[in-house]
Amino acid sequence: MSRVGDPLDSTAASSRIKVVMLSGGVGGAKLALGLSRVLEPSELAVLVNTADDFLHLGLNISPDLDTVLYTLAGVVHAEQGWGRAQERFEFATALREQGGPDWFTLGDRDLRVHVYRTRRLLEGASLSQVSAELAQQFGIRSQLWPMSDEPVATFVDTEQGELAFQDWFVRLRCGPQVQAIRFQGVSAARPSQALQHGLATANLSAVILAPSNPLLSIDPILAVPGLPELLRAQGRPIVAVSPLIAGQAVKGPTATLMAGLGLPCDSVEIARRYHGFIDGLLLDRQDASRCEQIEALGIRTRITDTLMRSLEDRERVAREALALAAQLSTRRRDA
Amino acid sequence: MSRVGDPLDSTAASSRIKVVMLSGGVGGAKLALGLSRVLEPSELAVLVNTADDFLHLGLNISPDLDTVLYTLAGVVHAEQGWGRAQERFEFATALREQGGPDWFTLGDRDLRVHVYRTRRLLEGASLSQVSAELAQQFGIRSQLWPMSDEPVATFVDTEQGELAFQDWFVRLRCGPQVQAIRFQGVSAARPSQALQHGLATANLSAVILAPSNPLLSIDPILAVPGLPELLRAQGRPIVAVSPLIAGQAVKGPTATLMAGLGLPCDSVEIARRYHGFIDGLLLDRQDASRCEQIEALGIRTRITDTLMRSLEDRERVAREALALAAQLSTRRRDA
Repeated sequence: MSRVGDPLDSTAASSRIKVVMLSGGVGGAKLALGLSRVLEPSELAVLVNTADDFLHLGLNISPDLDTVLYTLAGVVHAEQGWGRAQERFEFATALREQGGPDWFTLGDRDLRVHVYRTRRLLEGASLSQVSAELAQQFGIRSQLWPMSDEPVATFVDTEQGELAFQDWFVRLRCGPQVQAIRFQGVSAARPSQALQHGLATANLSAVILAPSNPLLSIDPILAVPGLPELLRAQGRPIVAVSPLIAGQAVKGPTATLMAGLGLPCDSVEIARRYHGFIDGLLLDRQDASRCEQIEALGIRTRITDTLMRSLEDRERVAREALALAAQLSTRRRDA
Repeated sequence: MSRVGDPLDSTAASSRIKVVMLSGGVGGAKLALGLSRVLEPSELAVLVNTADDFLHLGLNISPDLDTVLYTLAGVVHAEQGWGRAQERFEFATALREQGGPDWFTLGDRDLRVHVYRTRRLLEGASLSQVSAELAQQFGIRSQLWPMSDEPVATFVDTEQGELAFQDWFVRLRCGPQVQAIRFQGVSAARPSQALQHGLATANLSAVILAPSNPLLSIDPILAVPGLPELLRAQGRPIVAVSPLIAGQAVKGPTATLMAGLGLPCDSVEIARRYHGFIDGLLLDRQDASRCEQIEALGIRTRITDTLMRSLEDRERVAREALALAAQLSTRRRDA
């Protein structure tokens, strides 16, 4: 297996980084792809949620890291947005035939990444190192940073009791209503090596929060002690792309989750959640009426079509998020 | 994954065992299948070489155990004699695409067994337990006993220096001439739990050495301290099936290896190697002229066609080996 010399100490590489984007899985990966095309790929670092990571069949699975990896490498399953295109399931079939658990299906090509990650972690490599190695093996020139090298595990308290995240999300298909969300281990976690080394030499112009699930994907990243402070200390505009359009989430359980937790399902609520951390919020045209309320919080807004169906959509949202950050930089310089 | 209650303490199961057969991979698996059909399947325990076991991509691979497992389960690749039938190689393709080592090819269904074994061993299960669990998952009623639960690793000294066994056997296709063979770790190994528990309650009538490679498959089993004594202490006839026919091995590197080590490639040499341990040797019709020399060593002989092409061949060799053991029992009672 070809290894990277020392992927984390590559000052030359990280000094090119202009944008750090915080990401969950599918939605975040789409914007990451847009940014990697609007920027030079090497100017982007994707800071990825790892609170969904879990051990399955003894293998270390990092669903969000893999989704970003496959998307940036151009091998993702286009319709489902995660997993590999043209995947086969002989391993899963053999597993089912011998009575193995079949609720989390691993594709045959996909397996290679889990087997590699598991081995390298057992050998003592950090998740930062392994992610850099995988990025190189897949020919990705953007950087792939886990939020932390320490394990963090999401649990949800539901009407059916406490459930491990993948159990609720995949096996029970988000069925049981969620009353609370916990990130086990997060208080002992530190910002990943990749993030710390990368930021130390980056020439940042913006931090972007992808339109990922705020409760399940962005919250855990920001819950890593010291991580939000590290990003704010860069002194660059931080802008979020709202994951809601007219009170609906494009994909996944965001709206249902927010409703279940008694939160208004609205872009104003997104602004409130990120208040004190973000400087700007990119909103969908359908939410233009919310701008005034959000601006009143001291958060600059900008409007576009945020739905990302085509590659052009992804590039447009990327350009608009960068434009909002640029506006904020200018204002800051003017002040 | 369905687990066996306690597969190793199943006195009821092991008290049915009449025959223990020592086995390597392909050749041994063929005779095991024959025996499992001539006997009741539950009357057979296969004691398998694990000195070929190795770690590949972080996975615990047990080539001989898997070959016996797949053969007895009826899912083995019929032509090659190892691996699974109707196998696909998406995982291997993905591995190759990302620059992974491709000299040892793992099939997609086959992978499931390695992933399972690796996880269970990491969880602290013994190889005996894992092998019993796999046997149950594949619906095998014969017992699958590793020779030892401790790791043993074969190394060969060659004209190109020391090589790990699979490196020589698979990657270099037995190319470099072998000058010596070592079983690293064998002096610290003990007979497996499965063997010890199984023999304690078995109602044995014979021990059979399969026509496996004597140097690479049977020698390591007999090199486990205390193991040959355990088998001899059963007081039942021990018979071997010669792996040579007219000085040729049916498959694999037996003849080349013996020649390289300066050993006569002849069934008389097989008798000499096993002298003091076996009571009888089943020979091919083409080696009938060797009987006198072998009987002079105090080893009873019997003649049949030992080539196992068809299922009928395997059953015939199984019946003949059992018949030789029965002859020896009678003689012993008469004495």
